[in-house]
Amino acid sequence: MTAAVDPTALAASIPALDDAAMTAAFERQGTLTKPPGALGRLEGLSIWLAGVQGVSPPRPLARRRLVVFAGDHGVARLGVSAYPAEVTAQMVANFAAGGAACTVLARRADVGIRVVDVAVGRPSGAISVEPAISLAEANDAFANGLAIADEEVDGGADLLIAGDMGIGNSTIAATIVCAVTGAEPVATVGRGTGVDDAGWSRKVAVVRDALRRSRAATLEPIALLAEVGGADVATMAGFLVGAARRRTPVVLDGVVSGAAALVASRVAPRAVAYFAAGHRSTEPAHRRALEHLELEPLLDLGLRLGEGTGALLALPLLDAAVAIIGEMATFDEAGVAGPAQEEEQP
Amino acid sequence: MTAAVDPTALAASIPALDDAAMTAAFERQGTLTKPPGALGRLEGLSIWLAGVQGVSPPRPLARRRLVVFAGDHGVARLGVSAYPAEVTAQMVANFAAGGAACTVLARRADVGIRVVDVAVGRPSGAISVEPAISLAEANDAFANGLAIADEEVDGGADLLIAGDMGIGNSTIAATIVCAVTGAEPVATVGRGTGVDDAGWSRKVAVVRDALRRSRAATLEPIALLAEVGGADVATMAGFLVGAARRRTPVVLDGVVSGAAALVASRVAPRAVAYFAAGHRSTEPAHRRALEHLELEPLLDLGLRLGEGTGALLALPLLDAAVAIIGEMATFDEAGVAGPAQEEEQP
Repeated sequence: MTAAVDPTALAASIPALDDAAMTAAFERQGTLTKPPGALGRLEGLSIWLAGVQGVSPPRPLARRRLVVFAGDHGVARLGVSAYPAEVTAQMVANFAAGGAACTVLARRADVGIRVVDVAVGRPSGAISVEPAISLAEANDAFANGLAIADEEVDGGADLLIAGDMGIGNSTIAATIVCAVTGAEPVATVGRGTGVDDAGWSRKVAVVRDALRRSRAATLEPIALLAEVGGADVATMAGFLVGAARRRTPVVLDGVVSGAAALVASRVAPRAVAYFAAGHRSTEPAHRRALEHLELEPLLDLGLRLGEGTGALLALPLLDAAVAIIGEMATFDEAGVAGPAQEEEQP
Repeated sequence: MTAAVDPTALAASIPALDDAAMTAAFERQGTLTKPPGALGRLEGLSIWLAGVQGVSPPRPLARRRLVVFAGDHGVARLGVSAYPAEVTAQMVANFAAGGAACTVLARRADVGIRVVDVAVGRPSGAISVEPAISLAEANDAFANGLAIADEEVDGGADLLIAGDMGIGNSTIAATIVCAVTGAEPVATVGRGTGVDDAGWSRKVAVVRDALRRSRAATLEPIALLAEVGGADVATMAGFLVGAARRRTPVVLDGVVSGAAALVASRVAPRAVAYFAAGHRSTEPAHRRALEHLELEPLLDLGLRLGEGTGALLALPLLDAAVAIIGEMATFDEAGVAGPAQEEEQP
C-alpha cells in the first residue's frame, strides 16, 4: 500500500522549464556555423532540453531508460484484439530473452530496459461492464509510477521512455482518449495489432459502452484510470508525472503512452512540458492525443507496435540535437563569414 | 581527362533489385514477434536493403561514407544567397576542423567523411546568362563522380551519402528541378540559407532566365548539367549513378542531392531504386524532386542546411531496420502465440 496521491500538491510540484537556459540555447544556435534555424526541429529539441535540464548547452543524455509497463486487460476476452491474452506474458518473457523489437532497438540506442509486471495474468475488469480496478488500486498504481520514476532518476537516468505491453491495451487507450478529448469512438478506435472488421466493431462497442458507464469519472483523472484504465496505464501515468517532477525528459511512444500522457496532463498540466512525442502511430486515437497535448511527433513511419519502439527510434534525433549545440563551431571560432550585407549585392 | 560517359551503356549497367531477397525479407518480417507490418516503414527499409544487397536478412551497414561535393557558383554574385561566396571555402575548412554540422552528425552516426573540392574558388558561369560549364567539363565531372563511387565501394562502403557545399547551389538545384519536372520557378524556388524577399525575387529571375536560355538541353541530362548545373552537381550525379551501378544504397539529403538524383534518374532510370530519401527539406524544389522520384522521405523536420545533414539524421533508422530483421526472435523461437482464431472470440 503506497501513500494516497494528492493531485493538487503534485500539480504544484512540477517546475516550469528554465527560461534563461532556453534563451541561452536559442542564442547559441544563432552563433553556430549554419544559417539560423537551418536545422529546424533539431534546434528546437536542443532548446527544449536546455529548458528541461536548466543548463545550456544541455548535457548529453548519457543514461537512458525504457520502463515497460505490462498488464492484462479484461477486454481481451471480448474479441477486441487479433492476439490471445496469453501473448502478454509470452512477450514479457521475450523481452527478458532479448528477442522483442523493443529490446533490439534499445540495444542499438544504448537504452537500459526495466520491465514492470504490473498486472500480467491478473486482468483488469472488462471496462464495458465494470470498472477496470478500484479507486484505491488506481491510487496505489499511480503512486507506484511516481516511485518508479523517482527510482530511475535517483539511479541517474537522464532520459526516460514509457513502453507498454498488454493485449487489449489499445482499447483501453482509445477509451481514455475519447474520455479526455471528447472524441467519438468510431473516429478514434483503430486496428491495434491488426484486428479484423468484426473485431474493430466489437472494439468500438466496448469503448462506447465504457464511456457511457464511466461518464461521471471523466473529469477526475485517478477515477478515470480506475473506471476505464487499469493498473498498467495508471502506473505509467504516475511515472510520466514523476519524471516531470524530477525535471527528466520523457520521449512518448504510441497510443498507450499518449493516453497515459493525457491523464498525466489532467493531474499536472505542466508535466507535458517535459514530454517529446517520439512518433505518430497509425492509431487514430494517438493522433487525437498528440493534437490535444499539442505535441508534434518527431517521426511518422506508420508504426503501430508499442513497447516503446517509436520512442526508441526517435532517440537518436535528441542525441543529435545535443551534439549539434554542444560540438559545432561558432562563426567566430571557425572564421566563417556571416550573411552578406545588402550593399554587397547588385 | 576522364573517359566520355556513354549514357546508354550506363543505364543498362544498373542491376534490378533482387526480388528473391526481397521476398525472403518480407516473409521473414511475418515470422518475427510483432504483428505483421507493425513496424511500418522500418519493415519496408529492411526489405529494400535486402533487395539492394541481394541477401536476406540484409547485412549491417558497417562502413558508411559521406562524400561532400563542394563547388562555387557564378550565380552567387547575383545576390541570390544570404551568404557571400567565400563561405564555401571557409566551410570546407570547417569540415576539416570538425566544427560543421555534417562533421558533428557524421561522428555520431559513425560515418566517415570525404570532402571533394570540385570547384571551390573556381565558380561556374552565372547560369542566367551563360552555361555553367562546358559539355566536356560536364562529361568529365560526371565520369569523375562515377569513379569516386567506385573508389568508395572498392574501399568497402556499405552505404553512401552525397552531401553538398556551395553558396548559390540551391539556385542551381531549383533550376534543375524545374527543367526536369516542368515546375514553375515561383512555385519551386525557396529561401535557401535564408535569403530575404528581394534576394528571393532575384533568385526566381535567375532560374527563369536560366531555364529560357537552356531550353534545348532539357532532355539531355549531361547537357543540362553543363548549361544550368556545375561541376559539383555533375560530379554528384555521376556519384549517385555509380553507387547504383555497384548495388550500394544511397541516402539522399536535401534539394541539391534531390536535383542530382533527378539528373541521375534521367541518365539511368533504374538507379533510383538504390536511393532512399533521408528527409524532406523546407525547399519547395526538394518536395517537387521527391514527388517526381516517387521517394517518400523518412524525416520531415524543417531542415534546410544540406551538407548531408538530413541523410545523416535518417541513417539510424536504416540501422534499426537491419537490426530488427536480423536480431528479433521469431514466434516459434520465442514461444509466442500468433493471432487468435475467430472461434475463440465470442
